[in-house]
Amino acid sequence: MLPKGTRDILPGPMRVRTHIMQIVESVFQCYAFVRIETPAIELNKSLSGKYGEEGDRLMFKVLPRGEKLKKFEGKTASEMQAGVEEALRYDLTVPFARFVVDHRNDLAFPFKRYQIQNVWRGDRPQKGRYREFTQCDADVVGISGIVQEAEMMHIYNDVFHSLDLPAQLALNHRKLLLAIAEKVGAADRFIPFTVALDKLDKIGWAGVRSEWEAMGIVVDDQWASLFTSELHLDEDGLAQLAQWLGPVADQALEELTSLSELLSARPLDHLSLKLDLTLARGLDYYTGCIFEIRSTGAKIGSLGGGGRYDDLTSVFGLKDTPGIGISFGLDRIQLAMEELGLTEAVKGSQTHLLIAHMGASTQADHFSMAQQLREEGWVAELYPTAARLKKQMAFASRSGIRFFILRGEQERDADKVLIKDLQEGVQTEATGSEWIDRLREMLPPAGTQ
Amino acid sequence: MLPKGTRDILPGPMRVRTHIMQIVESVFQCYAFVRIETPAIELNKSLSGKYGEEGDRLMFKVLPRGEKLKKFEGKTASEMQAGVEEALRYDLTVPFARFVVDHRNDLAFPFKRYQIQNVWRGDRPQKGRYREFTQCDADVVGISGIVQEAEMMHIYNDVFHSLDLPAQLALNHRKLLLAIAEKVGAADRFIPFTVALDKLDKIGWAGVRSEWEAMGIVVDDQWASLFTSELHLDEDGLAQLAQWLGPVADQALEELTSLSELLSARPLDHLSLKLDLTLARGLDYYTGCIFEIRSTGAKIGSLGGGGRYDDLTSVFGLKDTPGIGISFGLDRIQLAMEELGLTEAVKGSQTHLLIAHMGASTQADHFSMAQQLREEGWVAELYPTAARLKKQMAFASRSGIRFFILRGEQERDADKVLIKDLQEGVQTEATGSEWIDRLREMLPPAGTQ
Repeated sequence: MLPKGTRDILPGPMRVRTHIMQIVESVFQCYAFVRIETPAIELNKSLSGKYGEEGDRLMFKVLPRGEKLKKFEGKTASEMQAGVEEALRYDLTVPFARFVVDHRNDLAFPFKRYQIQNVWRGDRPQKGRYREFTQCDADVVGISGIVQEAEMMHIYNDVFHSLDLPAQLALNHRKLLLAIAEKVGAADRFIPFTVALDKLDKIGWAGVRSEWEAMGIVVDDQWASLFTSELHLDEDGLAQLAQWLGPVADQALEELTSLSELLSARPLDHLSLKLDLTLARGLDYYTGCIFEIRSTGAKIGSLGGGGRYDDLTSVFGLKDTPGIGISFGLDRIQLAMEELGLTEAVKGSQTHLLIAHMGASTQADHFSMAQQLREEGWVAELYPTAARLKKQMAFASRSGIRFFILRGEQERDADKVLIKDLQEGVQTEATGSEWIDRLREMLPPAGTQ
Repeated sequence: MLPKGTRDILPGPMRVRTHIMQIVESVFQCYAFVRIETPAIELNKSLSGKYGEEGDRLMFKVLPRGEKLKKFEGKTASEMQAGVEEALRYDLTVPFARFVVDHRNDLAFPFKRYQIQNVWRGDRPQKGRYREFTQCDADVVGISGIVQEAEMMHIYNDVFHSLDLPAQLALNHRKLLLAIAEKVGAADRFIPFTVALDKLDKIGWAGVRSEWEAMGIVVDDQWASLFTSELHLDEDGLAQLAQWLGPVADQALEELTSLSELLSARPLDHLSLKLDLTLARGLDYYTGCIFEIRSTGAKIGSLGGGGRYDDLTSVFGLKDTPGIGISFGLDRIQLAMEELGLTEAVKGSQTHLLIAHMGASTQADHFSMAQQLREEGWVAELYPTAARLKKQMAFASRSGIRFFILRGEQERDADKVLIKDLQEGVQTEATGSEWIDRLREMLPPAGTQ
């Protein structure tokens, strides 16, 4: 039994997770990101107040031990809640900000880091949402430059390309949203304005307009055509925006023009790109381009997102640390791949061969065979005891092992090896010296394929 | 700032950790172990009482949230300590036992699993000991057979061979220790008897004997020669033991004889093997062979250990789950490698190339060059803004990047690329079409080496 909202990860799903993480990690590395880790337990004062009221409520805190626990005797729940010194990591961004401040003298900027670690949130569990889940984040901090936006978009492209998972990359710019808010007179209620706009695909134009009206923002219906039109990140699309928004959008449009040039020089070859003016990405911490990756085949919605920010670290006392970050939602990517049937090939057993145990007299001979197979690059197993052959073969089948190798005393004396292909249902007989070569023909060992 | 006993892992040490974990993992996989994960937060009732009084005291517990927290209002420290429902993982073995019981109908036995996850203990921090640390465990459960002992020893051998880290594998058998205890009349005080014996290399024979005497165990001095003699796992060594211990040691000696046969068929080619009668490995849960890996070059002691057990899961209500497990101490292996100077090659930057940013007019061209290098397998970076060249080159040096690639407007118009080798201090000029080939001669991209 496990606590609510937590789970074990069994070998099959674990292989899929590992597959996804390895692809994400190898792409991060190819773009010169370096891995770091931070501890699961942070000081409560580093985390509390950084995620809004909801974050403070959902954050897991650590019970003090020893003398420190005694200070809590007789206290109220809210005194305990507020008084504990340690809490579990709630995301990777705030600990990374603390990391940058703590180690600023040891890092060379621009600093490109990635981090693949678990976070804990006391959310209500639901499909694909657990109280412990893995975040995969990459950030570049310490310097700006639109090249970083183009790199991040290519990272998304390369990861989903390698995963063979169809997806759309939605792009927006915070300063475009600000320009729109200014044009329609909603600049002083910017966050609720964008939160309502973000729901356009769910509640439609009439729904968004009525949410705005409830805030006292009246927007002419002609804007509907801008929000719902197919805009492309090219000269035409940017000219159209300039026409709608005028000089207030100049800075955003200049950046998007540079980005468009970079992406023309190296187009995304897998993702479809959508300039989506309704994309808001909740966090008011973003200041430039914002991204969201959406599954286009599976009904799962967002698979990750990120954006440009001007200030990562001032909350920890270090000013002027701009940067850009993106995140991959491991569980959601896995769900999308499962829905599209992309995980079966990965989930299967990696064990190629089982050598049957034929009793004590041949055990050393068989152990030697198993070691030889491993040295040659196969994943091989020797059944550990002299169980009935039927039981050993049933174990191989149940474990998804393809080849069953038999060499009892009789075969040994005749210098033979029997190789049963359980998948094809055929048996091959090889002499003692050629059995490895025969196996190699049937199943090249890993690394030689 | 971080909680006491926790730490950030910076890119250099992280590369060393990743290197060690990848080797451990690939060896586990080669022996057909499959990876699983369990959640960091377990039910307190699954963990408490499983690690003795010290474990209960050092275990991190999770503060309840919401309504559940209110139940703790006004309680004493010990009521809180005992009443919380959730705790952080303290090791990987107890969660694995729970896992086996919870999923017994979905697993094929013998089940060979490995697990690389963090655990938390409120120990007093010291060199190489943190409150959050990583355990790397492999266990085979559900069936016995001496083949598994030989496999585990070869796994240790293969890992330390790949790490190029000299080490000794100490081997003992719980039933040998029992036989000795019986011979000297200490069978009824077996655990304290072995705990004292385990200190032989620290406190000497006189020290062990006086600890025994304090328990009322009087052992003749002639036994000193057995405990301090060089015993080998071969016919001679086993015959010597049989002579000392007589029939009470028969079962242990029979198993060690089988093990000796397996290791003769495939000897350990890297580790030195020592039959060490003083090795006790604290946990009274072991019932057969026990192992300890010791660094032979670095002053760091144990790098891991494990052993055979008869019963993993009865504490969770499932009887008869024998098995064998081994563990690698990641932090200690890293410390040993650092002490022996084995980490420098791994710690260095993995980034091969930095393309200088030469201004907006060539930015798209340079982005395209960076993408081409990445596609070819290099780890490449484009400096994100048009900073002064001196600054860009200083960044490359500080980051340990070897090649600095320059192509300003002038070079572009002349269709040239300048390649500065910052390590060798030489500069190469290549034409636009041959620069990739020239680079390939100087530094073959990863995967082609």
